Amino acid sequence: MKNLTKIAIAGVGTVGQGLIDLIFKDNGRNKKKFNIEISAIASRRKLKLSKKNLSNTKIFKDASSLLSFDDYDILVELIGGEDGVSKNIIFDAIKKKKNVVTANKALVSKHWKKIKTLCNQYDSSLKFEAAVAGGIPIIKILNEFLKSNNIKRIYGILNGTSNYILTNMLSTKKNFSEILQKAQKLGYAESDPTFDINGIDAAHKLSILSAIAFDIDANLSDIFVEGISEMELIDLMYAETLGYKIKLLGMSQIKNNNIFNFVYPCLIDFRESIANVDGVYNGIVVESDFCNKSFFQGEGAGSNPTATSVFSDIINISNNHSNKLRNPKEKKKNQDISERFGSYYLRFTTIDKPGVISGISQEFKKNKISMKSMLQKDNKPEKSKNATIVVTTHNCLERNMKKALKKINKLNFVLKNTVVIRIESLK
Amino acid sequence: MKNLTKIAIAGVGTVGQGLIDLIFKDNGRNKKKFNIEISAIASRRKLKLSKKNLSNTKIFKDASSLLSFDDYDILVELIGGEDGVSKNIIFDAIKKKKNVVTANKALVSKHWKKIKTLCNQYDSSLKFEAAVAGGIPIIKILNEFLKSNNIKRIYGILNGTSNYILTNMLSTKKNFSEILQKAQKLGYAESDPTFDINGIDAAHKLSILSAIAFDIDANLSDIFVEGISEMELIDLMYAETLGYKIKLLGMSQIKNNNIFNFVYPCLIDFRESIANVDGVYNGIVVESDFCNKSFFQGEGAGSNPTATSVFSDIINISNNHSNKLRNPKEKKKNQDISERFGSYYLRFTTIDKPGVISGISQEFKKNKISMKSMLQKDNKPEKSKNATIVVTTHNCLERNMKKALKKINKLNFVLKNTVVIRIESLK
Repeated sequence: MKNLTKIAIAGVGTVGQGLIDLIFKDNGRNKKKFNIEISAIASRRKLKLSKKNLSNTKIFKDASSLLSFDDYDILVELIGGEDGVSKNIIFDAIKKKKNVVTANKALVSKHWKKIKTLCNQYDSSLKFEAAVAGGIPIIKILNEFLKSNNIKRIYGILNGTSNYILTNMLSTKKNFSEILQKAQKLGYAESDPTFDINGIDAAHKLSILSAIAFDIDANLSDIFVEGISEMELIDLMYAETLGYKIKLLGMSQIKNNNIFNFVYPCLIDFRESIANVDGVYNGIVVESDFCNKSFFQGEGAGSNPTATSVFSDIINISNNHSNKLRNPKEKKKNQDISERFGSYYLRFTTIDKPGVISGISQEFKKNKISMKSMLQKDNKPEKSKNATIVVTTHNCLERNMKKALKKINKLNFVLKNTVVIRIESLK
Repeated sequence: MKNLTKIAIAGVGTVGQGLIDLIFKDNGRNKKKFNIEISAIASRRKLKLSKKNLSNTKIFKDASSLLSFDDYDILVELIGGEDGVSKNIIFDAIKKKKNVVTANKALVSKHWKKIKTLCNQYDSSLKFEAAVAGGIPIIKILNEFLKSNNIKRIYGILNGTSNYILTNMLSTKKNFSEILQKAQKLGYAESDPTFDINGIDAAHKLSILSAIAFDIDANLSDIFVEGISEMELIDLMYAETLGYKIKLLGMSQIKNNNIFNFVYPCLIDFRESIANVDGVYNGIVVESDFCNKSFFQGEGAGSNPTATSVFSDIINISNNHSNKLRNPKEKKKNQDISERFGSYYLRFTTIDKPGVISGISQEFKKNKISMKSMLQKDNKPEKSKNATIVVTTHNCLERNMKKALKKINKLNFVLKNTVVIRIESLK
């Protein structure tokens, strides 16, 4: 018989309710199998739980009450927020030599160093499988399977909301704001979706993956971040014509001993596995020296997959299996986005007259940029004199691309700021 | 500092060499990081290792010598074979209360029950991540991540050799035997490829996955197995025209509390993730109650990914993390293939004359089979009077399909035995 593990759950929102459902499902099969007892629950909401199942559980309205509560082995923090009460109860638990399980990516990302120091000092462990890609055990895979490999790069679709929006814009041919509203109605986007669509949520997750994969400290400010709120349907469609999907990609890689981390929407060849991760799914690719390319796909968020992650951390801790957070051996430098060497998709809106292409290509030449493909569409149906020109380029420096576009956007035949989206070859 | 872990390696073939490379790569980074010592190596071949790295290692020509050797914590068995010396040294190690890591799927599958009993009796653990899908940590994922979920079904492409053959037949438009020879030349198929192409290797792996996913005993004889040695290029091409890929699929699922396990080549909608697992890659999908669909893809075999799996077992054991093999709670019945309810791809070779379709459809009707699509190709270029008719059906019982085909193949206008391949919808 396994030893009893007492857990204190702070926060019963989507994930918290999923965790409680998972513990009690099938007549409490998981509760019995893993010998779990919920010794406390802190929740502002009324609990959907039978009296019978709560007989050994102390109920608190305010999570801060857990500061003066000791009768647990593992604190399960599911409130969220990078500071405030979450931080207080987590730090308090570590200092009490308790273990902690959390789904809080913002907090783990922001306080990475402090958490590590505290855990080592008090011999506690903090686990956060649920913080990145709910239904994919990527933290476990990096910590326990690929630990012997040198990671070359790790990249993925890390935000389900923005992936749902991009997928549905294309499949229904509707624009960003319409699909965002639909996503909110269906519960795939929050009422304030800022962090999802501006890339910050994906960046929090990437900073955690990067820290584990490359043995560095998590640092959100080192990540170049662009979101999808400016994304237009027309570019998703052109990309499809060209054999690409546009995805909000997060990538962390080592280049010449520098770290290069970014989150931005980009074109990806539709034959890449990651390009076919659609809807609310997340997908992660790890490239390593001994395993080449490993690909993992699962539901990115939602109550149940995330609860599975939280629960796996709980039972792994109760199995006495901890992976200490270690101090990184060397500080790596961070590479600026202007040093990116890659290809680009460009959409020019110009007057329809001779000399346009040559004007553009002159600026390209000056900046060592060469075209790979060109597609011209006259907007005849609208009887306008505008032309749309879609260009893809060979690899060039982002710095040079910026210089060229600054000049091009000032040319008298260019009617709108040029749309530029990075192409990731992932070869 | 981690405690020293002493390992004894039995067998230095492809995987054994990969493991040694992994331990000593980057100036012995993994050896130091995880504090590993190779206290013995048993190998018939000459070792590619410097004297310096072997200074603390006893070398044996014959693996049986390990029976009278005690100076190790973990036996790493990489010889293969379901009985003989592998079995002897593994059982001996368990009885010495040592831990065991193996890549031997045939042995684990055949001796599942005995291994479990012995490990419990002697309080040892045996780990076998490398036995299934080298570069995918599927055993860890099932045992440590999805353990709280009810698995509905698990399926995948589990044999890299046959997947390489099917992928390359289609991409190069060459027939089975040509591609098999190419695969042997490139080292993707062994000189005796029987177990790979007749489905037995995939079945060994499936029996292990099934045992873990459904908490039953592994049993190869309960699995319906068909291989790919009869596969013709023309069917791969027709399937592509119809929007499918043909893959050697292994699946284990629960239906009405019965287990239904099979390995056979079948058509899969090209939009399914698993259909795009090409070449030597393996892919596995797990469908569960709380995580829906999780998909994992990685190199299926080969020295390095398999060595990564072996090494992850070693460090997980040395971290005191063991998952005891438990006795299953209830015996589940096994479902016969004749009870399969699904759709079929059929290729008829007939005389080209009126009445053929009606003759076939009469037999279909008698057996409650209905057609979904039909494609007729006259083999005009060959100036023969043969016709090829490709039919897909709606779902029906395999028992009924067999009855119908027995009759159809005897009809006077049917010139060859009808080719029948199952279609898996994976919805």
